[in-house]
Amino acid sequence: MTGLPPTALPPIIVLVRPQLGENIGKAARAMLNFGLIRLRLVAPRDGWPNPSAGPAAAGADIVLEQAEVFGSLAEAVADCSHVYATTVRKRGVTKPVMTPEAAARTIKADAAQSAIVFGPERSGLDADDLALARTIITVPINPEFGSLNLAQAVILCAYEWSKHVDLVQPTVEELLPPAPQEHLDGMLQQLTAMLEPLGYFEPAKRAPVTRRTLRSILTKPAWNHLEIRTFRGVLTTLSRKPRP
Amino acid sequence: MTGLPPTALPPIIVLVRPQLGENIGKAARAMLNFGLIRLRLVAPRDGWPNPSAGPAAAGADIVLEQAEVFGSLAEAVADCSHVYATTVRKRGVTKPVMTPEAAARTIKADAAQSAIVFGPERSGLDADDLALARTIITVPINPEFGSLNLAQAVILCAYEWSKHVDLVQPTVEELLPPAPQEHLDGMLQQLTAMLEPLGYFEPAKRAPVTRRTLRSILTKPAWNHLEIRTFRGVLTTLSRKPRP
Repeated sequence: MTGLPPTALPPIIVLVRPQLGENIGKAARAMLNFGLIRLRLVAPRDGWPNPSAGPAAAGADIVLEQAEVFGSLAEAVADCSHVYATTVRKRGVTKPVMTPEAAARTIKADAAQSAIVFGPERSGLDADDLALARTIITVPINPEFGSLNLAQAVILCAYEWSKHVDLVQPTVEELLPPAPQEHLDGMLQQLTAMLEPLGYFEPAKRAPVTRRTLRSILTKPAWNHLEIRTFRGVLTTLSRKPRP
Repeated sequence: MTGLPPTALPPIIVLVRPQLGENIGKAARAMLNFGLIRLRLVAPRDGWPNPSAGPAAAGADIVLEQAEVFGSLAEAVADCSHVYATTVRKRGVTKPVMTPEAAARTIKADAAQSAIVFGPERSGLDADDLALARTIITVPINPEFGSLNLAQAVILCAYEWSKHVDLVQPTVEELLPPAPQEHLDGMLQQLTAMLEPLGYFEPAKRAPVTRRTLRSILTKPAWNHLEIRTFRGVLTTLSRKPRP
């Protein structure tokens, strides 16, 4: 470390299964207003490109042109070290909950790539989506009237991120960033492959919940790539046959 | 001053010569999300009430029903002690310019009634409107792409005001504390006992470092007692004999 603050990477905005092209355009407009350019779309309902997006973007064409499309959220955040999932309502998830303001501070204090993930217009992110995230962002909202739309949620997060971008951030300790999400996925696959033949995921109807729990538990540590490698070494050892 | 914080009055939102009923509705929705109820309209282009406002308000009917209409901005802010005028672009006015964040702090530090004034969709506030304000609010925005619409400007100001107002804090999920250290030790003992016969701690002179690394990695997650129990279940499963 040189003592200089790390360069904060602008977060990637990920829209999961967005329904209306108009809302994708509005999100792009909200992003560019506050200097965010990288947009990823997961399985947009009406495909991509979507002719309704452009007019709603009000000139934020660069964001739409460079938008990347993925088949799943896991793929969309595979190269990201920190995944923040936004929810409006209280959910039965046991992960740290931050305001957009606190999340923006955390993102800026960090040199690794972050993603902020937003769910579909009506339903929001589902439990499997949330399992991929280490942190939940919730906008503190009127408990008697919660009606933030997608573009509004995006603009509040983008706005918070844009604040004080020029200011010097406190020097963070020399800590390795969490490994990219794909390393975590590889580790989970290894563990799952070991557990399956031993009946861990039975009965079958409980399997989705069990898999989600496992993912959440192993997402929580924010292990860096060295730690992931060590843990995979542990797993490889455990899958050896006992010595005679 | 008693030293106690005065009771902050929520600001009144004033829309000057708004053009589209839809935008009045969106502004109402933005307000109510963050606990603001008092809306004043100055000479709305299409009169008032406006049938387009209701659907766009998405349920924020109370704001529209109680909206007051005035013929001029001077009348609309006559009973307000502090008038904040919003502009997006830099203007040739010699008044203090604040961010929404700074303005929210100022409004909350004050027991007097404040108004935040927004101009028409296309043109923004004119020089006469600005002359009525003591302070200008400008949202810091991408200098190469400034395209905030009326409802977005309202929501950012309302959002900033709502911060740290007790009523609108999110319900934070109850997070379980990390399990006591002895639970962690029990888990480590279980894992170590599984790894030893498989040669994980060889060569022997490396064993102390390897054990420390393992402890560090499994200390990092700060797993609670439920998570520890789940992980111990994983280990128990892994130590089963494969099925025939």
